[in-house]
Amino acid sequence: MSLSGTGNYCQLASDNGGSSCSHRHPWHTPEIDTSTPLAAGQLLLLNTLTGQKEPFVPMNQRHVKWYTCGPTVYDSSHVGHARTYLSFDIMRRIMSDYFRYNVLYHINTTDIDDKIILRARQNELMRLLEEDSSVNYEALVLLAKEALLEAKVKSEEKEMAIKLAIEEAIVKKDSRGKTEQEGLLEQHIFKRKKLEEDEAKILAACSSENEQTNASARASLLLVAKSVIAEKLDREKGHLITDHSVFNAHAQKYEREFMEDMEALGIREPDVLTRVTEYVPKIIAFVEKIIDKGLAYKSNGSVYLSLDAFLAAGHNYRKLKPAGPGGAVSTAAEMAEGEGALDTGAKGGEKRHPNDFALWKASKAGEPSWESPFGPGRPGWHIECSVVAGDILGERIDIHSGGEDLKFPHHDNELAQSEACFGCDQWVNYFTHTGHLHIDGLKMSKSLKNFITIRQALEANTARQLRIMFLLQAWDQPMTYSDQTIDDARSKETTFKSFFREVEALAREDYLNQEVGWRMDDADHKLAEAYMAARQTVHESLLDNFNTKDAMLALLKVINEANAYLRMPNVKPATLTLRSIAVYVTQILKVFGVVNGTDDFGFGSGGGGGADGKAADGSGSESYIGAMVNFREHVRNAALAAAKGGDASSAIQSILQICDGLRDDVLPTLGVRLEDRPTGTMWNLEDPEVMMKEMAEKAAKEKEIQIGKLEKQLVARTKDLEKVRSSMVKPQELFKTDEFKEWDESGAPTVMANGDPVSGGQVKKKKKAIEKQEKAYQDLMEKCGNNPQELLDSTQREIDAIKSKLDELSL
Amino acid sequence: MSLSGTGNYCQLASDNGGSSCSHRHPWHTPEIDTSTPLAAGQLLLLNTLTGQKEPFVPMNQRHVKWYTCGPTVYDSSHVGHARTYLSFDIMRRIMSDYFRYNVLYHINTTDIDDKIILRARQNELMRLLEEDSSVNYEALVLLAKEALLEAKVKSEEKEMAIKLAIEEAIVKKDSRGKTEQEGLLEQHIFKRKKLEEDEAKILAACSSENEQTNASARASLLLVAKSVIAEKLDREKGHLITDHSVFNAHAQKYEREFMEDMEALGIREPDVLTRVTEYVPKIIAFVEKIIDKGLAYKSNGSVYLSLDAFLAAGHNYRKLKPAGPGGAVSTAAEMAEGEGALDTGAKGGEKRHPNDFALWKASKAGEPSWESPFGPGRPGWHIECSVVAGDILGERIDIHSGGEDLKFPHHDNELAQSEACFGCDQWVNYFTHTGHLHIDGLKMSKSLKNFITIRQALEANTARQLRIMFLLQAWDQPMTYSDQTIDDARSKETTFKSFFREVEALAREDYLNQEVGWRMDDADHKLAEAYMAARQTVHESLLDNFNTKDAMLALLKVINEANAYLRMPNVKPATLTLRSIAVYVTQILKVFGVVNGTDDFGFGSGGGGGADGKAADGSGSESYIGAMVNFREHVRNAALAAAKGGDASSAIQSILQICDGLRDDVLPTLGVRLEDRPTGTMWNLEDPEVMMKEMAEKAAKEKEIQIGKLEKQLVARTKDLEKVRSSMVKPQELFKTDEFKEWDESGAPTVMANGDPVSGGQVKKKKKAIEKQEKAYQDLMEKCGNNPQELLDSTQREIDAIKSKLDELSL
Repeated sequence: MSLSGTGNYCQLASDNGGSSCSHRHPWHTPEIDTSTPLAAGQLLLLNTLTGQKEPFVPMNQRHVKWYTCGPTVYDSSHVGHARTYLSFDIMRRIMSDYFRYNVLYHINTTDIDDKIILRARQNELMRLLEEDSSVNYEALVLLAKEALLEAKVKSEEKEMAIKLAIEEAIVKKDSRGKTEQEGLLEQHIFKRKKLEEDEAKILAACSSENEQTNASARASLLLVAKSVIAEKLDREKGHLITDHSVFNAHAQKYEREFMEDMEALGIREPDVLTRVTEYVPKIIAFVEKIIDKGLAYKSNGSVYLSLDAFLAAGHNYRKLKPAGPGGAVSTAAEMAEGEGALDTGAKGGEKRHPNDFALWKASKAGEPSWESPFGPGRPGWHIECSVVAGDILGERIDIHSGGEDLKFPHHDNELAQSEACFGCDQWVNYFTHTGHLHIDGLKMSKSLKNFITIRQALEANTARQLRIMFLLQAWDQPMTYSDQTIDDARSKETTFKSFFREVEALAREDYLNQEVGWRMDDADHKLAEAYMAARQTVHESLLDNFNTKDAMLALLKVINEANAYLRMPNVKPATLTLRSIAVYVTQILKVFGVVNGTDDFGFGSGGGGGADGKAADGSGSESYIGAMVNFREHVRNAALAAAKGGDASSAIQSILQICDGLRDDVLPTLGVRLEDRPTGTMWNLEDPEVMMKEMAEKAAKEKEIQIGKLEKQLVARTKDLEKVRSSMVKPQELFKTDEFKEWDESGAPTVMANGDPVSGGQVKKKKKAIEKQEKAYQDLMEKCGNNPQELLDSTQREIDAIKSKLDELSL
Repeated sequence: MSLSGTGNYCQLASDNGGSSCSHRHPWHTPEIDTSTPLAAGQLLLLNTLTGQKEPFVPMNQRHVKWYTCGPTVYDSSHVGHARTYLSFDIMRRIMSDYFRYNVLYHINTTDIDDKIILRARQNELMRLLEEDSSVNYEALVLLAKEALLEAKVKSEEKEMAIKLAIEEAIVKKDSRGKTEQEGLLEQHIFKRKKLEEDEAKILAACSSENEQTNASARASLLLVAKSVIAEKLDREKGHLITDHSVFNAHAQKYEREFMEDMEALGIREPDVLTRVTEYVPKIIAFVEKIIDKGLAYKSNGSVYLSLDAFLAAGHNYRKLKPAGPGGAVSTAAEMAEGEGALDTGAKGGEKRHPNDFALWKASKAGEPSWESPFGPGRPGWHIECSVVAGDILGERIDIHSGGEDLKFPHHDNELAQSEACFGCDQWVNYFTHTGHLHIDGLKMSKSLKNFITIRQALEANTARQLRIMFLLQAWDQPMTYSDQTIDDARSKETTFKSFFREVEALAREDYLNQEVGWRMDDADHKLAEAYMAARQTVHESLLDNFNTKDAMLALLKVINEANAYLRMPNVKPATLTLRSIAVYVTQILKVFGVVNGTDDFGFGSGGGGGADGKAADGSGSESYIGAMVNFREHVRNAALAAAKGGDASSAIQSILQICDGLRDDVLPTLGVRLEDRPTGTMWNLEDPEVMMKEMAEKAAKEKEIQIGKLEKQLVARTKDLEKVRSSMVKPQELFKTDEFKEWDESGAPTVMANGDPVSGGQVKKKKKAIEKQEKAYQDLMEKCGNNPQELLDSTQREIDAIKSKLDELSL
């Protein structure tokens, strides 16, 4: 054979010549497209620290240390919280379950804070007031009017102060200061109007003596005047509430409610959950370290971060919300809120600079406090996040998340404290903030009456619908909660459902039969291409700053294409491709938390193969099993009661047998163990194999018992047979044997075979035997109606039947 | 405030001076480690084409076009098949579900092939022989002896030919040829020994006339002589089998068995499944294209690829198994096997070169055939894979997989054909071959009696255990199936199970309570680090050529660390972290197919939140629902039969009510719709919400009907009331009204109020009315026992009751 051309033919042995070649043939790696970050598979993340999408790079391997500010647990959570935690839940799931980063997600609940103290204290004082029967309606009217007056005076004082500051700013030509104070004034006027509304209600309730009883008038007044009275009481008696448990109970109530809300929303539990109250010693140490570095100072029992010193040390402040025309208006109000709702009682000179913020607050009477080197006090609001996140995740964090509202001052102050303590310049690499939530186009607020708690939202919608609504909007943009966005989510949910149902019906059919596609025609190719394209779009969308909207639309698009495909005339549906699409769509919806919001774990059903899908699987099946067991118990009890009441009908008997059969024969094969106890029927799940084994053992034991019974019967019947045989001999024939030669008329022998006479004693004995036989014979004849052979035969038949049963059992 | 140092303080508005800054603070991207492919996140794949691990790069975006040779469906599948398809299943799942590539996985079943033809034909001939009663035992003995003799002659001829070839090679000093022929001789001698064993058995069966009946002797002989007789019959009568359905039925039987085996092993269905018989027209077109390019030639009704022409065109041959010292021994035998089990009948000159291989085979009588431009024939073995894969996946493929045995000639020939047809130099970018399977250390073979079918393996082990065993060994190395490897898999399965159970118990507890960790101590940190490390190791192991063994060991390692953690004294377990570990381990086991081998899709339970876990979920629950429905049907039928038979006992009635309650009240809330039809009870799953809505509608309708009834009653009772009222007027009082002034003794009016006399006609009329009233009055008195007031009251009470019911209903 001639080897012409450039081709390379590693010769076979049958070719002559020794030019055997064992070298490899040329191979080239396919080209990699790295022209764009997306093509290169780079995850992009909008980073508030730079205001733009940045390639996400973890610090250490693929570990993602992620901290999210949890709630301050002083009140019920609203859909704004849902917006934040659902958005981060979705992002976390995508990072962990889709991109397979090693995410360690940490949330902290703020269970000590000014708002909690104030709310808990006021609630407690109001509770005491309500219970105090000495304060009757008349006394309450006086109290309410006084409280109202005080509130109005305070409000007027504040308004005056702000207006004065505005004038001052005008004089000083400080336009920034002016704008800011004008913002405060706007806020204040809003509050004042609210107070005026309250006033009208309170005064009406104070003069309602007509039909109401004293008690109900008192209750009505308490309701409308709650806010002003609580504030007055707190001013006067707040310092008397010194029991920590008042604050703890309040915090724990709302903490639990929050966790329940999160679970109801299908939000994955964090990997680590902390509470501030568990961290006080570490907070104190953290603050001491900043003091030691000269970046914080003690003052009057409190500790403040010194911004001057911090900047002098080369750090930056306000990384997230740099001051400037854009962020100026609300700054003063934000700073004030950041310092807490309780009056600090700080005198003018307590802070070195008005914007220095508290790391540690001296506690006054009526405020919980912990011993510290700075005196009895409690943590400032911001410090806790720096400490818990630093403790759990280390001195640098990959991602820090929180709601838009927390950017400044909370997060900027966190950054400052942490960078001060750890001496680093980038405590957080990626800061992410969700956008606001708008209800029907307006920012949610209590005053706008569009304030919705999570529980209310979940009454109107399922968690899945809410989540789909979130997935269809951008996590980092303002989000709209409206009839329209909810309807859109519902309609898309229906599209998914219908598609799953259709594929399910197809998948039930035998794909080996001839009516199903075994080759690809044009339409099948188009379907497969649509599937590939959907996967690609989903991947690229998720890489692009978690663009779940486009990912969802890609899933819906391939479903639409599949629907069109299925409606083509004469299509032989490519069941397997359709199934792959359905499985893939489900996988992505699982990643998004739309399918099974809570995560399961464990082996689930069966042995891991496809064949044995029925087995000890708890999860979704428990409710069915529970229903079945209850149903059986009711039926059984009705039948048992009837049987006890004397109803021995065959219907009742067979119903009881059916009940036993379910317990003994059916459920064990399904891995369900049922026990009928006097207190009711119990059930639990068990490995079906184990149960089958137990059943086999039980059956073997029962068989053994049955064999024993049959053997006893066999012995008895054999004895019967012998007895019949011996009794059926006629008395006079009893001794008609070869032993003798002559007999008397009764049949008693007289002469032996050898001619010797039978002795008298022997004759007597024989006669007695003949008499006995006479009786046996008569008894037998009576019993068998003179037909001993029939009795013999029937006994023999019984014996044969027993023997054959025994044979059967021993097989 | 002084701004000293280098720090950057974007000023607050309250700072005087106009130096407001709105620029961003410096931010730096974390460093990317790309020092190794693993660190850079590059997936490596052992490529048979280069013999080393290569970075995996798909051709187009993230699409992975993947073809795996399916079975030739002529016999039951064995664990060697399981080894191949399970290994690729695991790799495919990792690529698709873990790394999120857009995998399109295509398998083809070879349902037309020499082996199928031969086996189907022989089976059919043997079946006809067995059924032919004219061939009795004696005739069969003759046939068997003849067949044996012929087999021995053929065997001797072959041995002679090989020995001759060896001598020739020695003379020609062709050491390669010699070695190869020696290999063939070794194989032959093995077959000869097998024939000698058969001979002994056949001869024994031919002379067994003793106790056996003629029929059973015949059956015994048929059994031992099956192989030689079938071969003889096929030689003589094979050409008479011309019905395609004989071959189709044989192929489809084993195709179905294969698919069932795959399902039982939990192997994911391919995205596309094809059959060769559906592709004959495309195969013909493919072959024509190669002929048109001058790279194949027709000869005697067959078509062969011309290796000379192929190489001359610049292509390479034997890319996977280059000829050389390593691969030489078995080459001739492999080439022969590659050309098919049926004698081609090709004369010496039919092929231009002995190693040219058939693309299309002329069919002889007794072989299925399709019309083609080359004459009636059928596809060669290799061509089908090139054609189906080319059709489904396109003219270039990312990954091609198959068992080790298929490397040469099958895969090398596929490459040649495809590169010839498509005119490319790299039809497949990555070729992957699984290693062999060794049973207890020896290669599995029928002769070694260690041949195990998949069904046998699944009788001894669960699919999960087998899969774990596979995961613990390398996909590209020889794999050991032994008691030891199975025991190891079982013990590891137990470790997983125990861990899941322990976490389940912990997770059941309330993690909000005080006994659970709310901060991290040293041990908790260690646990979290172990979790992160496990994730990292799993990721890196999977990137490294799908090293599932190390990934599994990493999962087991973190479980061991968690177990140690849980056994520490006084630990307050970090439930959430443990739960995260359990969820993660489960996720990876799901990717591996260890959890739920078959894939589910759809929404599963509930509304996607955590709270409502009970709902229309098919999967594992169907068996429970089925059992419940059956049970109910039996109970109901027993009760219905009793009721029909006249048993109206309260027990039967209440049992029927319980049955209705399950259908109407309980199951709808669980999303199960029950229908009692005459043919039996049917059930299906439905969205609980939809069902609840239906129930509400039904209730509304029933309410409407009830309201209608009540309203009718109300009208009737009101009429009754009026009637009583009118009837209770005493007859003589009937006209005692202001209209009149005087009356006669009967009460009939005689003088009007104005003094006018009442006309005679009017008096007559009035008297008639009085008579009528007399009757009504008497009837009423009789009816009410002279107590009309009581009747009035009771009717009024009835009316009130109806009204209050109506009020209730309209609430």
